[in-house]
Amino acid sequence: MKKVLINDAERIDDLLTENLHIIQSDEVFSFSMDAVLLAHFVSLPQKGKIIDLCTGNGVIPLLMSTRTRAHIEGIEIQERLADMAKRSVEMNELEHRIQIRHGDLRELHLETGYEVYDAITVNPPYMALRGQDIKLNPHQAIARHEISCTLEEVIAACKRLIRTGGKVAMVHKPQRLGEIISLMRENRLEPKRIRFVHPRAHLEANMVLIEAIRNGKPDVRLLPPLIVYNEQGEYCPEIYDIYYGSKEGRI
Amino acid sequence: MKKVLINDAERIDDLLTENLHIIQSDEVFSFSMDAVLLAHFVSLPQKGKIIDLCTGNGVIPLLMSTRTRAHIEGIEIQERLADMAKRSVEMNELEHRIQIRHGDLRELHLETGYEVYDAITVNPPYMALRGQDIKLNPHQAIARHEISCTLEEVIAACKRLIRTGGKVAMVHKPQRLGEIISLMRENRLEPKRIRFVHPRAHLEANMVLIEAIRNGKPDVRLLPPLIVYNEQGEYCPEIYDIYYGSKEGRI
Repeated sequence: MKKVLINDAERIDDLLTENLHIIQSDEVFSFSMDAVLLAHFVSLPQKGKIIDLCTGNGVIPLLMSTRTRAHIEGIEIQERLADMAKRSVEMNELEHRIQIRHGDLRELHLETGYEVYDAITVNPPYMALRGQDIKLNPHQAIARHEISCTLEEVIAACKRLIRTGGKVAMVHKPQRLGEIISLMRENRLEPKRIRFVHPRAHLEANMVLIEAIRNGKPDVRLLPPLIVYNEQGEYCPEIYDIYYGSKEGRI
Repeated sequence: MKKVLINDAERIDDLLTENLHIIQSDEVFSFSMDAVLLAHFVSLPQKGKIIDLCTGNGVIPLLMSTRTRAHIEGIEIQERLADMAKRSVEMNELEHRIQIRHGDLRELHLETGYEVYDAITVNPPYMALRGQDIKLNPHQAIARHEISCTLEEVIAACKRLIRTGGKVAMVHKPQRLGEIISLMRENRLEPKRIRFVHPRAHLEANMVLIEAIRNGKPDVRLLPPLIVYNEQGEYCPEIYDIYYGSKEGRI
């Protein structure tokens, strides 16, 4: 692990896999289970180019680097977070495999061109703006609410950036499932694999993992439910294996 | 149970709830678990008018009659099946509560007018026509393949027939989920409750139950997975209770 500068509000956490570490901050951004599950859910090519939109502190690129030798990028609109992500990449000595961009996903195609990525991941802000009062600091507000990009803009960006046959994987709230599926299909991203995450077997899902193929044919595989906790309140084996790094391959 | 005429190829089965019986025929049509689950999944009004499209031998209207005092109709395009359904209604002495129509759902609004139903159920043919060779007799082929109506036509009919705020509940294959959700939303039927049925907890879903509200706001509840068999190959308690009639209320 290479030494990098850490601010007062920051800490270094262990990603519990291949000795990876990450810079986090409760004030600014800490990753959640959603990001970890997405990094294990996406079908990754072994070569070519992958990009993680709304990358935050870069947790998804870091975790994906254990699953593929393809080149990985991340883009983040908040300069403070992009800087944290860059320092995490440096700290893990992964600069030759992971590139963090500070920028707006809505304009990325102007730099990269159209249809240049083989896979895209995105853990976008979940909450639509509906005139509600947001009781969060600006960093958290932008990460959680559709302030800097809407669901529609994220999916339109995916369409511009992904090549035909390339895969777009998203984690989101099941409440938005109707919108996600219509918007994906309007943008020629055909949903192919969907997995719902339930906190317990008898509870409603609180997360959806969805992967679409650009210009694919309609045909969805609805994977087994991913249950987080068993009756005793312990992690179910699949979650445990994902978190503690013994899980190999796609979930 | 009132006596009615039964053909050679037909038999009378016990619906195991409120002493209901139904005429079935392996040659023509026998109901499956899909229909039973849909009849228990739909949110039923206690008054007003309900219609079951693609009603087959009328199993869904019969089962729904145990859950509501509303007036129930069923429509079936195959004369032979509509006749079986009518005789089943008569046999159960439910003519005052259930009316079976022989007709084409694509033209029903010409008889009934627009937006006249408070709830609609439909267990449509699952298989899109893609030039495949269909190895079934004509009755089974029409029930299972999109010969007499496509998914698009079924959903368009639902839109024409349901009132604002009314509920449309469908059972289908998860493979078609992308198409179902886009078509519903294009027709202002907003998906609100979705439940996936998995044969076992670790297997992919093979059925989806989905309920939409006409002119509803986007907001999906993704219900707990419905698992059919446990590890020992026995029905899970919820399925057992549905089949053996002790289940009360909506699933």
